[in-house]
Amino acid sequence: MSNLNLNIIKKDGNARATEIILNNKIIKTPSFMPVATRGAIKSTPHMFLNNTDVLLANTYHLHLRPGSDIIKELGGIHKFMNWDKVILTDSGGFQAWSIPTKINDDGVIFKNVYDGSSFEMTPEMSIETQNKLGSDIAMIFDCLIDINDPEEKQLAAINLTRAWGLKSKEKHANRKQSLFGILQGGLHKDLRELSAKYMIEQNYDGYAIGGLAIGETRSERKDIVNFTTKLLPENKPRYVMGLGDLHGIVDLIEEGIDIFDCVWPARLARHGKLVDGNDYINIKNKRYENDPNPISKDCPCFTCKNFSKAYLRHLIHNENTSSWLYLTVHNLIQTEIILDEARRSILESSFNQFKKRYQDE
Amino acid sequence: MSNLNLNIIKKDGNARATEIILNNKIIKTPSFMPVATRGAIKSTPHMFLNNTDVLLANTYHLHLRPGSDIIKELGGIHKFMNWDKVILTDSGGFQAWSIPTKINDDGVIFKNVYDGSSFEMTPEMSIETQNKLGSDIAMIFDCLIDINDPEEKQLAAINLTRAWGLKSKEKHANRKQSLFGILQGGLHKDLRELSAKYMIEQNYDGYAIGGLAIGETRSERKDIVNFTTKLLPENKPRYVMGLGDLHGIVDLIEEGIDIFDCVWPARLARHGKLVDGNDYINIKNKRYENDPNPISKDCPCFTCKNFSKAYLRHLIHNENTSSWLYLTVHNLIQTEIILDEARRSILESSFNQFKKRYQDE
Repeated sequence: MSNLNLNIIKKDGNARATEIILNNKIIKTPSFMPVATRGAIKSTPHMFLNNTDVLLANTYHLHLRPGSDIIKELGGIHKFMNWDKVILTDSGGFQAWSIPTKINDDGVIFKNVYDGSSFEMTPEMSIETQNKLGSDIAMIFDCLIDINDPEEKQLAAINLTRAWGLKSKEKHANRKQSLFGILQGGLHKDLRELSAKYMIEQNYDGYAIGGLAIGETRSERKDIVNFTTKLLPENKPRYVMGLGDLHGIVDLIEEGIDIFDCVWPARLARHGKLVDGNDYINIKNKRYENDPNPISKDCPCFTCKNFSKAYLRHLIHNENTSSWLYLTVHNLIQTEIILDEARRSILESSFNQFKKRYQDE
Repeated sequence: MSNLNLNIIKKDGNARATEIILNNKIIKTPSFMPVATRGAIKSTPHMFLNNTDVLLANTYHLHLRPGSDIIKELGGIHKFMNWDKVILTDSGGFQAWSIPTKINDDGVIFKNVYDGSSFEMTPEMSIETQNKLGSDIAMIFDCLIDINDPEEKQLAAINLTRAWGLKSKEKHANRKQSLFGILQGGLHKDLRELSAKYMIEQNYDGYAIGGLAIGETRSERKDIVNFTTKLLPENKPRYVMGLGDLHGIVDLIEEGIDIFDCVWPARLARHGKLVDGNDYINIKNKRYENDPNPISKDCPCFTCKNFSKAYLRHLIHNENTSSWLYLTVHNLIQTEIILDEARRSILESSFNQFKKRYQDE
């Protein structure tokens, strides 16, 4: 029995507006998940994100600090963070790619980024940890490899993810938590097909397309996602992991993707690059030195309601840490707003019109 | 004509509760000014400080970046920061002590901390800059020296501050801005007396006692302030510069000081040291690892309303930059609350009772 239901409200081409309902909460899609790796968005109170339906937290990091037993004792991840909307936990699979590891059939020997020691994480451990954290959606522990790794390595990663998926599924014991499978296969359509088959056999509550946004071109990505979504069941959420660039997101909304996540809008903000309509501006530019206007005239975010571009330029120019908050809030709120506009365009059958704003990079 | 009126509402011993009224704004004293050096409190939106009547900004830093002409063009410091309550600007005198400089009779050859170049600041320039910034209260450009510098050097500093004060006063040309004098003289009562005489002769809207909180003991400081306040007019604000430690503040409220400022509560917070009642706790301590309670049960700050000690410990333990915001807000709000309690105790003639909480360090 799944704790999750997806209702397709409207389709426009392959693009879709859905409502994902779980644990008496709702995710209106297309939806973007801000990244709260350790249970907090960098520099930014999550309370500022009024429109956000779902946050992403990370199993690897929360396992190490403060540990899932402590979070469970404190009432679970929602209570710990004070966020009662949806939380999805990534499994640690991304860290098995981004942090030096040894991978074997049973799991991954990780380096502990906090003290340099080694520890093993198995698929079972990852799920047990996520069960204890009590996120609404858990991810299976997957094997992510480089996009350009040779085909036989891609095949091995798919097979390992299949085996780990089975172990994850068997271990999973939290009825209030959905479990999503993860497809791999790089840019090989035959492998994507095989990976989709393996995952669908295991019958997950939703499907993530992994292994993208790590070096492929925009059109390669769009092509693979176009191919892959056709293989996936209509009535389950589809999630592309690690994509936060607006142009790239709109590309994949067009291909029927429902959920996205990335550190990108927050990281860009800390470097002064801000979403402004369908483009970005660099607030560090001298032209904003005496600009009395907010970043975006109609933006409802805390920052645009309170501060001018001149003030924000001044703060980031002087590396004042409050600027990270102000700029991050703007980018995250704007990302939500743009995904909400995409949703409305789908509901009004005008997605093709909407997407034109994001066709040029 | 002064733009400022001070009404003594109640005295309890030498301690006093006043209302300082200027530009249709009010400072209820004793009052603590959080430090927004560059027009922002580090890591913290000033909008979070509901109870704060007055912020401190800095002439040296705003002169260099973004420059007072830009701030004037943007409508002044209040509009620039989006803070319509009182703003006091320090003159740059503190930086003439804290940053390597050459001092001559005309002014100070400063190093520009941003690019290493040199520039001169004179008393006239400091006042002109503050006039343009449009703060409610400006400070004269003073000569601050080490507390233990020999008596002849202390005397020279007093004489220079007297001369610079005159130049500041003559240059001052903003009717909506008060101007405060600054007393020097280290720990020498005869010099403090001379300095008070010189400043009172120049007839300022308020008087700061400078040259303290830079190395003297708590009782040395209390003794000097006790001596000095007796020399000052009753109907003008009294401000001790650079003191933020609660025990030290309560000491000087007892001696009739109205206004304080310091980076201390914010800096302590960034190191995990938090005001809890009349004491401090270190939130990094392992004992808080699974503590589900807020820092202070009755604290109305954003942080105590939203987060547990366990969560805050987790964030600062992992150097998550959002922790700086959460911890700073708490310390600043608590400092305001404690000064408000001091005020109420004066109004109720129970300051002696109140101060007992802060007698031991």
